[in-house]
Amino acid sequence: MAEFDLIERIRSRAPSRADIVLGVGDDAAVVRVPPDRELVICTDTLNAGVHFPLDTAPFDIGWKALAVNLSDLAAMGAQPAWCTLSLSMPGDDPAWLDSFLDGFLALAGQHGIALIGGDTTRGPLSIGVTAHGLVEPGRALQRGGAQMGDDIWVSGTLGDAAAALWLMGNAGVGATADGRRNPKPALAAPPTQRAHSGHGETLRERLDRPQPRLAVGLALVGIAHAAIDLSDGLWSDLGHVCRASGLGALVEVDALPASASLSQGFAADDRRTLQASGGDDYELCFTAPPSARAQVEALELESGTALTRIGRMVAGTQVAGVDAEDAPWVPERTGWVHFSD
Amino acid sequence: MAEFDLIERIRSRAPSRADIVLGVGDDAAVVRVPPDRELVICTDTLNAGVHFPLDTAPFDIGWKALAVNLSDLAAMGAQPAWCTLSLSMPGDDPAWLDSFLDGFLALAGQHGIALIGGDTTRGPLSIGVTAHGLVEPGRALQRGGAQMGDDIWVSGTLGDAAAALWLMGNAGVGATADGRRNPKPALAAPPTQRAHSGHGETLRERLDRPQPRLAVGLALVGIAHAAIDLSDGLWSDLGHVCRASGLGALVEVDALPASASLSQGFAADDRRTLQASGGDDYELCFTAPPSARAQVEALELESGTALTRIGRMVAGTQVAGVDAEDAPWVPERTGWVHFSD
Repeated sequence: MAEFDLIERIRSRAPSRADIVLGVGDDAAVVRVPPDRELVICTDTLNAGVHFPLDTAPFDIGWKALAVNLSDLAAMGAQPAWCTLSLSMPGDDPAWLDSFLDGFLALAGQHGIALIGGDTTRGPLSIGVTAHGLVEPGRALQRGGAQMGDDIWVSGTLGDAAAALWLMGNAGVGATADGRRNPKPALAAPPTQRAHSGHGETLRERLDRPQPRLAVGLALVGIAHAAIDLSDGLWSDLGHVCRASGLGALVEVDALPASASLSQGFAADDRRTLQASGGDDYELCFTAPPSARAQVEALELESGTALTRIGRMVAGTQVAGVDAEDAPWVPERTGWVHFSD
Repeated sequence: MAEFDLIERIRSRAPSRADIVLGVGDDAAVVRVPPDRELVICTDTLNAGVHFPLDTAPFDIGWKALAVNLSDLAAMGAQPAWCTLSLSMPGDDPAWLDSFLDGFLALAGQHGIALIGGDTTRGPLSIGVTAHGLVEPGRALQRGGAQMGDDIWVSGTLGDAAAALWLMGNAGVGATADGRRNPKPALAAPPTQRAHSGHGETLRERLDRPQPRLAVGLALVGIAHAAIDLSDGLWSDLGHVCRASGLGALVEVDALPASASLSQGFAADDRRTLQASGGDDYELCFTAPPSARAQVEALELESGTALTRIGRMVAGTQVAGVDAEDAPWVPERTGWVHFSD
């Protein structure tokens, strides 16, 4: 694959925006940021066998590489604008690249984010994306804004992606115990699997094609006090909110939202652990005052995304769990052992 | 190395700027772009053994990872502002990381660019940087602006980095013939080496610590018609200017600037080929009308960076060379076989 074929292949398919002065193909891209907006910038890299199983379809790799970055923009309450793609590939594979771009650009098109540049290098398969979004000045959602007594909410359902990895027997995923997303969930013993193949497929789709909660994030500006996206697992990520806000979090573990596939496929104890500690959910976790409950419920209806109240911010410094009988509940493990943020 | 040590290590050392609303440590960074500026964005990834020799010092890897991106900003005439760092490392090595950050932040400090975010993952050593700069609206230098009769200029000297790789015998650099920067220069036979170790060290420093020509790039806004940075070799990169501008380029090969180390270390034929085809120079190549010669010469004095007139833009579609006797000169190879832009 010659360089210019590749660049041309990307350029010809990159959607445009009126605020792009210069897109793919020069030493850099040039864009116009509206004077009444602040610029939000995030970057996340996926390495083959660490952040996705080696057998992941190229469409899904492209989708996920962008999705994890859009999820960060969602957690800031930002409107997506532009992104760059840094693609390292071991060899020439135009068919793989086309499928990868199909996935990347399908998601990009859904959220109006334009691919404006990047680079391609020879090396082990790795995909780095830097995403740019826009927020009104001073309105970006942060981790450190939670207040005592805030409700804690999550979007969607938790634990599905981790369950998918478990059902796969971790096949093809890096075996390192210290990879960023350690694919081995926090279970001391194999979970009670009651899943049939239909559940497995549904769960796998949650792993491979996360849905960044951009509409929810945007609508939370002015409602939420703090927000974060769930990439490393609820306990771990909510812990960031606790530390940044100088508070503790009390989570009602039986209130954690579960998909039908997760509920039907796993016994309660295993399900709870997957929900509390599993990674790769890419849902939003946010805090808001109890006075905002009606607004959050209205947002749930409007967005079509489930929003579930799972606990409240309390005095303390960390995340604690209680079960339906108000007995303390502690996950077998408090998150993936991870290497990164 | 725990995640938070690493993040904290980076955060505590990241220089700040008044236009940063939120730096390292949240889901994303937030910055303020001045209303009278356009935003310039570039991204470049370096993979160990492909873009730098495996024996490269961590300080130099950090330096170079930022330098190659600043060089792109220079080629746009942009003022550096913020950058993100995506670091993939095979294991825990705090001493390596500290040296890497020493190099990265030393160069960042020289040019006032702030590290505002990034991510760290487990994987083969790879460093992705996205750099952001600012230009006055409509003033960014582009590849496609060259005009018939323009002088062609380059900054600094050419061929040193390629010579360094040659002298190293390509030790430790990826052996793939299709790596982005194929370390094997375009010589049919080994060059006539007259280098002693002093030259080798000087040349190696040019390979490991390129100096991005930001002051020159900024000053060229309003003077140059077109600009590009030289990463893949003059013939190859000037070829981009030709294609983008719909013109040809005629290069006086004996006018190409050479360092003392290159001149003293290599016979003329080999030297020419290294200058014309070698990669990793990270000098600027730009075109300007003959009427601007006095301005360019004044800029040379002001910036302390040599600026050498090496040819002119002509009718045609590609780069052609002539020697001092006006005889056609063709490099043995027209650039690294590369994979990327």
